[in-house]
Amino acid sequence: MTDNSDRWVIPVSVPPPSLSDNRADADRLATALKSVLHTDDIRFSWPLLKILPRRLRANPSGEVRCVVMKDRQCFRVVGIKDLSDPTPAVGLAVDLGTTRVVMRLINLETGEALAETAMDNPQIPIGPDILARIHYAASDAGRHDLHVRIINGINAGVADLCRQAAITADDVFLMAIAGNTSMTHLFLEIVPDWIIREPYIPAANRFSLMTAAELGIAINPNGCVFVFPNVGSYFGGDLIAGILYSGLHRREEIAMLVDVGTNAEVLLGNRDWLVACAGAAGPALEGGMSRIGTTARPGVIDEIRIDPQTHEFHIHTIGDQRPVGICGSGMIDLAAQLFLTGMIDLRGKFVKDACGGRLIEEDGIRRITVVPADQSATGSELAISQTDIDSLVRSKAAMYAILETITAYVGVTFDDIATFFVAGTFGSFIKPRSAISIGMIPDLPETAYQPLGNSSLEGASLALTSRAAFDEIDSIRDRITYLELNVNPEFMGRFSAAKFLPHTDPARFPSVKRSSGGVASS
Amino acid sequence: MTDNSDRWVIPVSVPPPSLSDNRADADRLATALKSVLHTDDIRFSWPLLKILPRRLRANPSGEVRCVVMKDRQCFRVVGIKDLSDPTPAVGLAVDLGTTRVVMRLINLETGEALAETAMDNPQIPIGPDILARIHYAASDAGRHDLHVRIINGINAGVADLCRQAAITADDVFLMAIAGNTSMTHLFLEIVPDWIIREPYIPAANRFSLMTAAELGIAINPNGCVFVFPNVGSYFGGDLIAGILYSGLHRREEIAMLVDVGTNAEVLLGNRDWLVACAGAAGPALEGGMSRIGTTARPGVIDEIRIDPQTHEFHIHTIGDQRPVGICGSGMIDLAAQLFLTGMIDLRGKFVKDACGGRLIEEDGIRRITVVPADQSATGSELAISQTDIDSLVRSKAAMYAILETITAYVGVTFDDIATFFVAGTFGSFIKPRSAISIGMIPDLPETAYQPLGNSSLEGASLALTSRAAFDEIDSIRDRITYLELNVNPEFMGRFSAAKFLPHTDPARFPSVKRSSGGVASS
Repeated sequence: MTDNSDRWVIPVSVPPPSLSDNRADADRLATALKSVLHTDDIRFSWPLLKILPRRLRANPSGEVRCVVMKDRQCFRVVGIKDLSDPTPAVGLAVDLGTTRVVMRLINLETGEALAETAMDNPQIPIGPDILARIHYAASDAGRHDLHVRIINGINAGVADLCRQAAITADDVFLMAIAGNTSMTHLFLEIVPDWIIREPYIPAANRFSLMTAAELGIAINPNGCVFVFPNVGSYFGGDLIAGILYSGLHRREEIAMLVDVGTNAEVLLGNRDWLVACAGAAGPALEGGMSRIGTTARPGVIDEIRIDPQTHEFHIHTIGDQRPVGICGSGMIDLAAQLFLTGMIDLRGKFVKDACGGRLIEEDGIRRITVVPADQSATGSELAISQTDIDSLVRSKAAMYAILETITAYVGVTFDDIATFFVAGTFGSFIKPRSAISIGMIPDLPETAYQPLGNSSLEGASLALTSRAAFDEIDSIRDRITYLELNVNPEFMGRFSAAKFLPHTDPARFPSVKRSSGGVASS
Repeated sequence: MTDNSDRWVIPVSVPPPSLSDNRADADRLATALKSVLHTDDIRFSWPLLKILPRRLRANPSGEVRCVVMKDRQCFRVVGIKDLSDPTPAVGLAVDLGTTRVVMRLINLETGEALAETAMDNPQIPIGPDILARIHYAASDAGRHDLHVRIINGINAGVADLCRQAAITADDVFLMAIAGNTSMTHLFLEIVPDWIIREPYIPAANRFSLMTAAELGIAINPNGCVFVFPNVGSYFGGDLIAGILYSGLHRREEIAMLVDVGTNAEVLLGNRDWLVACAGAAGPALEGGMSRIGTTARPGVIDEIRIDPQTHEFHIHTIGDQRPVGICGSGMIDLAAQLFLTGMIDLRGKFVKDACGGRLIEEDGIRRITVVPADQSATGSELAISQTDIDSLVRSKAAMYAILETITAYVGVTFDDIATFFVAGTFGSFIKPRSAISIGMIPDLPETAYQPLGNSSLEGASLALTSRAAFDEIDSIRDRITYLELNVNPEFMGRFSAAKFLPHTDPARFPSVKRSSGGVASS
């Protein structure tokens, strides 16, 4: 949208009252808004109502800018700014990740991003993964602690953003937050106990608009907080936001969206149908993807090339700093290169002859050195063990099996997929070529793969800048059919078949060519 | 309603989740409620959502009682009680009068009244009338003071009521409050400045459901507060509640409803149409009705009979106590008796000969003694001056002129009116015969007059005990046509003609017979 007619800030002219038009202030303003919003259900928040008569009379022309937000079928008026007020009405988009929280301020009138900040999820000290936090949340005190941590974290972020953008927090009227189902429950202090227990039941999937005041969010107290809805325990609001941003729900051709964060979540569909599944439901992937490597940050190895002749390692780190570890995409690059150069075999096992001096065996566990101690930033050797590789192989097998299962369920083939969106940090860094080489993702043309970046944040931003996009959220949610993998009889067979590199059926990966082929013994 | 199927407390059975029904807790509960409420728009308040998973699993049978409330088209679930919990879910009805605040606790499940209390409006020390309070409310601090006074007053009442009924405030889930437009604004701390300034504009006429927590009402914090809507500055929620209680909006025959409190408000109509006007809009009635006598309380004279022969006064006081003053109905009785016995003439002036020794003149102002000093509770003489009588005559003239104007506007006659409801304390004490005798109300059969009692409180109670009745509130409001008296060209002529007792046209009051007729000079 390049014009501003689709925004949440509506400029209107409110006629002054007269003896022949003695409607209440709220009614005259609602009528003015109605001509834009095309609904009779326009409501005013109480704090705004308190001052409405004076606010309307502050400007003799009766021209004001109203900040509105939609709550299912009704519109709420949450802020009124004078037409001549030079300060913008601002929105706050939040991607509430299990690991990272990313926040962005947006000018609600122009759609322009004003500032961005990110932080580790302040709940991490309680537990790095969701499971630990949900156990901690079993007590009222624990649940409250987790809630307060995230609220305080967001408030610190708001202060930082407002400084960056040189605005006051009182000008932030709307907030949209997207997170997975567990994070959403913990954000709202809702008992999450049964999300992780069979049959995996969230307390709620949709949430009414809340006020910043009731949530304790330090924006305009009268501001509205929109929480993205979930589909179920394993398909959350972050994914809905991602779909919204990708636009695949509006396309004629079939597309797939994969988000690999704590879990691997997959959506397949087009404008007519949407089918979703999530990897955490698959037994082999339980916590799997998250265990590979470390989070992408400066010094982390994100690319590795192994010379096919010399087996020399060429590494690249984020920010070109001395290496501190390997992130997920680096691990996939490494596995692909090890496989393509014959240093691991079809089952992912180290090939002793090919690995040479890099292979070390200690207490029966083999590892290869990626960066020697004297070249790393930590002073310790960076190595990858057979256990790490085995774990990666299981994860890639699970991923491929998920993609195969959902595709088969719908009755299409990988060739029917026009676009393969890869969301999240993982999607930003992953090299499709490497992921294809190990058989993690289908052997599609590289152009089919499109990184989406932080699609959760982008989707939340979109909800704040387009009323039309916002309106799509519920319909996306309602249209999704969720496929349970752990009751799918074929999943385990597909998973086993995918535990080879690239697959037990190499014909599925015609583009993958090893420099030294054949199965070598370990 | 004798059955409980129309209540705000809905007993439902929520099936436990399973792998084949892994809908969220809120969704399964909403589906159960949907079969009763027949809507998809069922929302859960945040505090309830927080504990919903545990609340639903507390009872293995899945049977619970949900307290719901409607917010325009959607239902909000505000409380859940176990089926076996013996404590009732309770509602609080409030009549927010300018002078008195009356509160009632109601068992939401049976409709039974549990306790009642009343107090002077805690804003009275700021100003006995609305005008003084609105001026005081011009400053933010003043407005906040008035708001806090009424909130604190209600909270004290809640504590009293809960003691009386032996319930905890946490079991009070719903509150319905009905007041005039100004009192509603002051209750909600909304700038009331323009209610009293031409063209008399309220800030708002309809109010969204609010939570007890945001208002600071000391019931269940998650409880919902419903504020009756206004029609305009001079026709408020108390009248809407009164109409609801009277049921005149559902009848085929035409009825009139008159509420004489601070203002005189009148509604005429039936199931097809409703027309309203208010006396404060008439210049002669400005504050008029409220000035007559004192508020009804123990010791106040509510009935007077004057012996036509001896001119002896027979008085009755509320509670049969020594007299302390005269209330509105006592004043009307007195005026009627003075007129019928010839002690005042057709213009309401004292007739010296007929009054005899009771008539005293001091500083050019005449008065008659009603109770000598030695018989009153105050030790002072209770007297009525010519000024008081003149004021009453103006008020009764205004009242009659209002009734005549609204009737003529609609094109019906008094004889078309099947029922004449008289609301408020005034309505409970007034003797129609006396009011007819002075020409305050039309000369209809006495059986046509029906006192409604505290119809504002009764209407608020009805809103809490019947969903069907609640649904009528908005339609009553929307159907009312408001007639502005101060722009009505005929009103002043009618008012002047009605300043005689009973009227310049005595044919209108065939039933009024004086014991000593004729115009006597003063």
